[in-house]
Amino acid sequence: MELLKERIRKDGIVKEGNVLKVDQFLNHQMDIELLNEIGKEFKRRFTDKKVDKILTIESSGIGVACIAAQYFHVPVVFAKKSQSVNLDGESFITKIESFTHKKTYDVMVSKKYLKEGEHILIIDDFLANGCAVNGLLDILEGAGAIVEGVGIVIEKGFQDGGRLIRNRGIQVESLAIVDDMNAADGTIVFREESVR
Amino acid sequence: MELLKERIRKDGIVKEGNVLKVDQFLNHQMDIELLNEIGKEFKRRFTDKKVDKILTIESSGIGVACIAAQYFHVPVVFAKKSQSVNLDGESFITKIESFTHKKTYDVMVSKKYLKEGEHILIIDDFLANGCAVNGLLDILEGAGAIVEGVGIVIEKGFQDGGRLIRNRGIQVESLAIVDDMNAADGTIVFREESVR
Repeated sequence: MELLKERIRKDGIVKEGNVLKVDQFLNHQMDIELLNEIGKEFKRRFTDKKVDKILTIESSGIGVACIAAQYFHVPVVFAKKSQSVNLDGESFITKIESFTHKKTYDVMVSKKYLKEGEHILIIDDFLANGCAVNGLLDILEGAGAIVEGVGIVIEKGFQDGGRLIRNRGIQVESLAIVDDMNAADGTIVFREESVR
Repeated sequence: MELLKERIRKDGIVKEGNVLKVDQFLNHQMDIELLNEIGKEFKRRFTDKKVDKILTIESSGIGVACIAAQYFHVPVVFAKKSQSVNLDGESFITKIESFTHKKTYDVMVSKKYLKEGEHILIIDDFLANGCAVNGLLDILEGAGAIVEGVGIVIEKGFQDGGRLIRNRGIQVESLAIVDDMNAADGTIVFREESVR
């Protein structure tokens, strides 16, 4: 998605340790007009899919998911992170490791809001090693829901997450894939998109 | 806002300890069509205000704020919660106490995204004792920003937050104010709205 790549080039900041800061428009301050264009593009890429609900994870996935949901006309469910969850049997629970925060979280979704046979599109802001998305996929498997695909705003293509999830036969659509970046000079190399 | 009150009556669950669960449509699963009506209503109530940015707080304020921002044509900034923040001088930081989680958090907004003289509308899902909103007001005061108002989806009118903030001369618009609720029989009493 050219508009997104331009914005990442303009306002993204590459930091040591493979960190790409996009908090000017995506995950601290949010450019709602850009999020609308992102939402439309997700709809275009998943236009042939039956989607009953969008699933995301707090916090920075919520804005993108809510704006995108307007184009699918479906509700959003966001998975909640906690450092300790009561195993009360009322929630689907999994553990994810946070790359950014070097912590393990419990992640939960109430059983009331994910049902067997529901068609689910996962949306999140970032995909790197895939821990968050894999956690959501675990939860969907536990629920017996049908995974229609994964929509990601920015994928770090030099990390393994995207490849491993695609290898499971899941349609992953990342609107910008960063194949290389350099903190010293700030350059960012995007993967070429095949014409779709 | 009648549509919202109807939904709270239908899908809200009153629990012991003054807890009103609305995770069916507001803060776990999110009904995006309802959020759009809420966003329009905030625009109507703050229509005479100059708004440069909407400020909210993670996580459950983000969805409402993003959808509402479409009617104001402004970006959203969400304050981040953390249990320990680096005092690096690059952020406005305050502490808030969470009523729900009985914890104290550091809350921060990068100085890059709040500037002196900017006109800010605060939006959040709940207002009870006002800790979250007061924290955001502290941050705005630190930034030298201008508070244009506070838009709340559900206010617990039997707690002090709303009254205290209104007493400071700030326009607080709560789309549903719960004056009483009863866990035993599930009844919810809303404050009558003056005709506007």
